[in-house]
Amino acid sequence: MTAGQPFAEWMKAVQSGIEHALDGFLPPVSEAPARLHAAMRYAVLDGGKRVRPLLVYGAGELFGADSAVLARAAAAVEMIHAYSLVHDDMPCMDDDALRRGKPTVHVEFDEATALLVGDALQSQAFQVLSEGETLADPERQLAMLRLLARAAGAGGMCGGQAIDLASVGLTLALGELERMHQLKTGALLRASVLLGALAGKRLEAAEVAALEAYAEAVGLAFQVVDDVLDATADSATLGKTAGKDAADNKPTYVSILGLAESKALAEKLRDDAHRAVVPFGEKARRLREIADLVVQRKA
Amino acid sequence: MTAGQPFAEWMKAVQSGIEHALDGFLPPVSEAPARLHAAMRYAVLDGGKRVRPLLVYGAGELFGADSAVLARAAAAVEMIHAYSLVHDDMPCMDDDALRRGKPTVHVEFDEATALLVGDALQSQAFQVLSEGETLADPERQLAMLRLLARAAGAGGMCGGQAIDLASVGLTLALGELERMHQLKTGALLRASVLLGALAGKRLEAAEVAALEAYAEAVGLAFQVVDDVLDATADSATLGKTAGKDAADNKPTYVSILGLAESKALAEKLRDDAHRAVVPFGEKARRLREIADLVVQRKA
Repeated sequence: MTAGQPFAEWMKAVQSGIEHALDGFLPPVSEAPARLHAAMRYAVLDGGKRVRPLLVYGAGELFGADSAVLARAAAAVEMIHAYSLVHDDMPCMDDDALRRGKPTVHVEFDEATALLVGDALQSQAFQVLSEGETLADPERQLAMLRLLARAAGAGGMCGGQAIDLASVGLTLALGELERMHQLKTGALLRASVLLGALAGKRLEAAEVAALEAYAEAVGLAFQVVDDVLDATADSATLGKTAGKDAADNKPTYVSILGLAESKALAEKLRDDAHRAVVPFGEKARRLREIADLVVQRKA
Repeated sequence: MTAGQPFAEWMKAVQSGIEHALDGFLPPVSEAPARLHAAMRYAVLDGGKRVRPLLVYGAGELFGADSAVLARAAAAVEMIHAYSLVHDDMPCMDDDALRRGKPTVHVEFDEATALLVGDALQSQAFQVLSEGETLADPERQLAMLRLLARAAGAGGMCGGQAIDLASVGLTLALGELERMHQLKTGALLRASVLLGALAGKRLEAAEVAALEAYAEAVGLAFQVVDDVLDATADSATLGKTAGKDAADNKPTYVSILGLAESKALAEKLRDDAHRAVVPFGEKARRLREIADLVVQRKA
């Protein structure tokens, strides 16, 4: 993973590196309880674009972070993300049967196993980030754990989920929709960027502010594009059920702003993301490229 | 909480202290999302015997641990315990309507909220244990987080749940039943004891071994007594549905050993617990008294 690599190559290298890391950090199927371990691996491995790990590695390049620490941080964030998808898909939440082109965990296994898989993956994320002999600075490692816990919980992802649940069938104002997404998906994307940077060094307030501005723009862009794709792409392309938000009567950027204005907003947010990382100069190349990827993706 | 206090007084002081700590560590209902926060508080506050916090504080007395650190450790363990009860009670798991004498979370709120409450409580536990300025030794704080994560996840509580799920309707040997309980409830009880001690100082191997022997005996005694009570007490006394294990065709100590032999085993395990903490001398008084409490309890 060198600085001169084309983005597509760098991305593939990160994706295959994180796949390998996740494989090593998940409990093996050869150990009991085998079915739980198998379901955890099913939920995490071989899936998704790994946007959060890309952000961890992209931000890690700013400060020359150690790749073993980045692997732990990226794996931890991805496990939190994967657990949230497993629980989200359950019948009492979104009741979805398809995820990343495969049957969801409660369909492939059963509901009780899906519940436990999500619970165990969350613990595993904190375990992975609390272990490892690679970070010489335990206070920084504590700061990373604190960051992940806050991003995952009631003040972050879970809180966003709760607001999302409460908003079904309601007409949200644009500001309320943004607030929901800032928590539901934004908190973990922000944590990914900051974890990657923290893996390199203790951060100055100005660095945190720049990274947060970047993360916020990318996070919202990600959601706007998600809504655009949900309204325009088909299930086979997405690997999950398309048109689901409209069918569920959930407020989206497309339902509030319309399709054309949503697309324009995504472009504007990409420009915001680029501008935010100007202070980091050439070293922020991967972060700029990830913002481009988020806006240009087709699935 | 002085060493000369009668146990009942000490216990009440710890219980009211942990109630206060939990109240402060849980997000307030005055902040959004209010319903999630209300449900988290409903699940955690004003409930249970607080056996795990008692173990944290009892072990903390061995090494003069700071009470602010003990409060964080005890609150974190209790949040993990409370989340596991919320998820356990859900329809796809034990499908129980009564817990600690109150409707379970999915009955009082709804299933989706119960799912999120459990998820958010787990994050909150790691957040509480990763925050705080009280522990001057960040490596020790990291060790505490690692301990809690391992106890909660696939190699601990969640793994035990998975084995429990898989064993419904099967005839387990005594050793298999023990293994299941060592993970399902034992791992978190063991973590409680070690967290309390670690809050005081870095532990020697011999200290860890003694505390583990104590925790294992208390953990198994706890489960044996649970099975005895499930078979003999009524729901009003227990504050949860009695006779549930037999109705669910779950293997228990009573179903394997019979009632009289189960009671004798509980007494033997209490003696084992007492013997394990002999090396700590008089300072282990609270740990001995907690072992007595676990065996003598009526609910």
